[in-house]
Amino acid sequence: MLNRHDANDTIAIMAEIGRKARAAARPLALAPAEQKRKALIAMADAILRDEPKILEANAIDMKNGEEAKLSPAMMDRLKLTPARIKALAEGVRAIAELRDPVGDVIAEWDRPNGLHIERVRTPLGVIGVIYESRPNVTADAGALCLKAGNPVVLRGGSDSLNSSAAIHAALARGLTEAGLPADAVQLVPVADRAAVGEMLKGLSGNLDVIVPRGGKSLVARVQSEARVPVFAHLEGLCHVYIDRSAKLDMAIPLVVNAKMRRTGICGAAETLLVDRAVADTHLTPVLDALAEAGCEIRADAEVLKLYPAAKPASEADWSTEYLDAIISVKLVDGIGGAIEHIETWSSHHTEAILAEDAAAVERFFNEVDSAILLHNASTQFADGGEFGFGGEIGISTGKMHARGPVGVEQLTSFKYRVRGTGQTRP
Amino acid sequence: MLNRHDANDTIAIMAEIGRKARAAARPLALAPAEQKRKALIAMADAILRDEPKILEANAIDMKNGEEAKLSPAMMDRLKLTPARIKALAEGVRAIAELRDPVGDVIAEWDRPNGLHIERVRTPLGVIGVIYESRPNVTADAGALCLKAGNPVVLRGGSDSLNSSAAIHAALARGLTEAGLPADAVQLVPVADRAAVGEMLKGLSGNLDVIVPRGGKSLVARVQSEARVPVFAHLEGLCHVYIDRSAKLDMAIPLVVNAKMRRTGICGAAETLLVDRAVADTHLTPVLDALAEAGCEIRADAEVLKLYPAAKPASEADWSTEYLDAIISVKLVDGIGGAIEHIETWSSHHTEAILAEDAAAVERFFNEVDSAILLHNASTQFADGGEFGFGGEIGISTGKMHARGPVGVEQLTSFKYRVRGTGQTRP
Repeated sequence: MLNRHDANDTIAIMAEIGRKARAAARPLALAPAEQKRKALIAMADAILRDEPKILEANAIDMKNGEEAKLSPAMMDRLKLTPARIKALAEGVRAIAELRDPVGDVIAEWDRPNGLHIERVRTPLGVIGVIYESRPNVTADAGALCLKAGNPVVLRGGSDSLNSSAAIHAALARGLTEAGLPADAVQLVPVADRAAVGEMLKGLSGNLDVIVPRGGKSLVARVQSEARVPVFAHLEGLCHVYIDRSAKLDMAIPLVVNAKMRRTGICGAAETLLVDRAVADTHLTPVLDALAEAGCEIRADAEVLKLYPAAKPASEADWSTEYLDAIISVKLVDGIGGAIEHIETWSSHHTEAILAEDAAAVERFFNEVDSAILLHNASTQFADGGEFGFGGEIGISTGKMHARGPVGVEQLTSFKYRVRGTGQTRP
Repeated sequence: MLNRHDANDTIAIMAEIGRKARAAARPLALAPAEQKRKALIAMADAILRDEPKILEANAIDMKNGEEAKLSPAMMDRLKLTPARIKALAEGVRAIAELRDPVGDVIAEWDRPNGLHIERVRTPLGVIGVIYESRPNVTADAGALCLKAGNPVVLRGGSDSLNSSAAIHAALARGLTEAGLPADAVQLVPVADRAAVGEMLKGLSGNLDVIVPRGGKSLVARVQSEARVPVFAHLEGLCHVYIDRSAKLDMAIPLVVNAKMRRTGICGAAETLLVDRAVADTHLTPVLDALAEAGCEIRADAEVLKLYPAAKPASEADWSTEYLDAIISVKLVDGIGGAIEHIETWSSHHTEAILAEDAAAVERFFNEVDSAILLHNASTQFADGGEFGFGGEIGISTGKMHARGPVGVEQLTSFKYRVRGTGQTRP
């Protein structure tokens, strides 16, 4: 498994993976919902049964990781425990119980000539997932793609290859038990980085979309080099705007939650915009609450005058995704100023407005062109689970096909079914 | 306009076009439906008013075309007449009256924590259209993109540059009259082929999707070289399957229509599959009707025995899109054999089943993975107008974002609007 391969070996291995994935597409697309559900339950059961093997494989990865001097954060992401394995299995079981979108009639209508047209959901195709050394993604991503009827090619970080292989073995057994092709979920078995290059080239037309799961450098490489469509976001530079009509007692806990609940996720707020009209009343209490929660505050010149405890912000702060307990703060001229700032600096992921004035909210909702816009709610709700999708493979800031959380439904395509009674076209 | 430019000029011109298009995106996205409607009506009026100028420009193109010895078919596509200009204007007026999809709430739901989530249509972005020397596409494509709130960069064939420029001038005047930026519809003013190369590279991130309109070599080049998503189909290798349950009196006119109504369009049938169970009753009458309509018949060995007037088909016939009065014919073992043949040879554009047996129809609808499937109707209905989309910019065989006819609605993206009452994420 961890043997060294030369580049030609890797190319041949990846080509074979692509062919097998494509061959699995049709049986998977035709599999009834109940068969996919049973396969997912069998996969969850197999993960629980294999706990000892998975822990054993993980111990090897952890030992190698220590020797390779991985950072504590990386080691924590790599580490599996009985509780984490149980959570993995429960995640797969939850995906098993989601509604199956394949076959849903999304729209239907009649034409004057009597033709009845239906637009029906179908699987999307073969999905490639490229992720870092987080073994849990192996189960999550594999299960989500399967639910939507898509074969998946998983390429996890090389530091987690033993753990991922052990989890993958459980998934494959679940597939086989349910009578589905084991090739529906494949794990790239080589650590060679050339495997990623082959995926970015699309495995000779056998890969339909790539989902990168990981840090900015991984996403940036995939976005710039992939020859197939990518579902991803490079940054979550999220804004919270406090309008003059905002309630202060709502704003304080909401801004603290948006910034501080978890600072390292893409939906964490990075910039706070405060309507100049309420600077005197709203600014200090909100910043005090942030500071008390342990947040560093970087302020523009105007805010600094009103809140001297802050550090001065530089131009770079408006375009920085801190992913840390730091927030940049700026006064703006009402809703128009807020929209202007956001349209200039945002990564178009998620933005929130705190306001009681319905007109301001409507303008924010209409004019800000980001994937997710929230009114009187925390930006940290930018999450497939919180949207009720049951799971997500990522969040997309692209505008093609999938935008926002990418759940099971977003992993489908559609076709048209037209029913006639002998119509010929004049 | 027709001066020669060197490559650096072209690169600079294209970069400027990209920047202007992106700058027009926000005002266009925010334009109310009524303003876009008025702009389209003003564009249609301007086309009619400019008839003399457009005919004059077209006369230059026609003269150049004669000197360049363009084929009669190319000259016919290039030629404008008062009647064709009127049809152009009427086409734009029809698009003006379509429903505006921007702002439509596609889905909405409530979460247990009280959040209300809406998925709302937004414009897609800047669209590039690359087409051959058909000046009418200038008006059609420009109008459709505008209706969905998208700036468009039009690159027409060099033989039609004068005609396209005259039509474009009318479109630009309509935009200005309605108070919209004229840059919302731009025509590439240089004949240099390097302009296409720049578009395929995406104009430095200022082009979001490319639509090629034209023959196979144009589509193939765009699909293989484009670094941005493409809405297109390379081939329309469409099948008609006559099931054992088909009514012969419906099959005869329907097959003739599917093949012969217009042989040069992507929805024209290319292969006829006949259930072996009805070979004795259905084959000869259907092939006689096709032959009588002037169609050449290329048959497999079994069909040849039953219909000796046919020519023998070779293996290549199953993968040939004739776009001509030729059809390949084969006997198959019922619905299973038909699906097998289609999944092996089809370009996944459009297929029809003629049958009265509901189970056969359902199996065909479920198992054939093409953009458009028809029951008891002609494949020539594969058309945005016939689907009720009011117009189409093309038909896509891709599975991402748009599949089948690409009308105004398919030229949109969406965003999520989330309404809360102060929710923070636990």
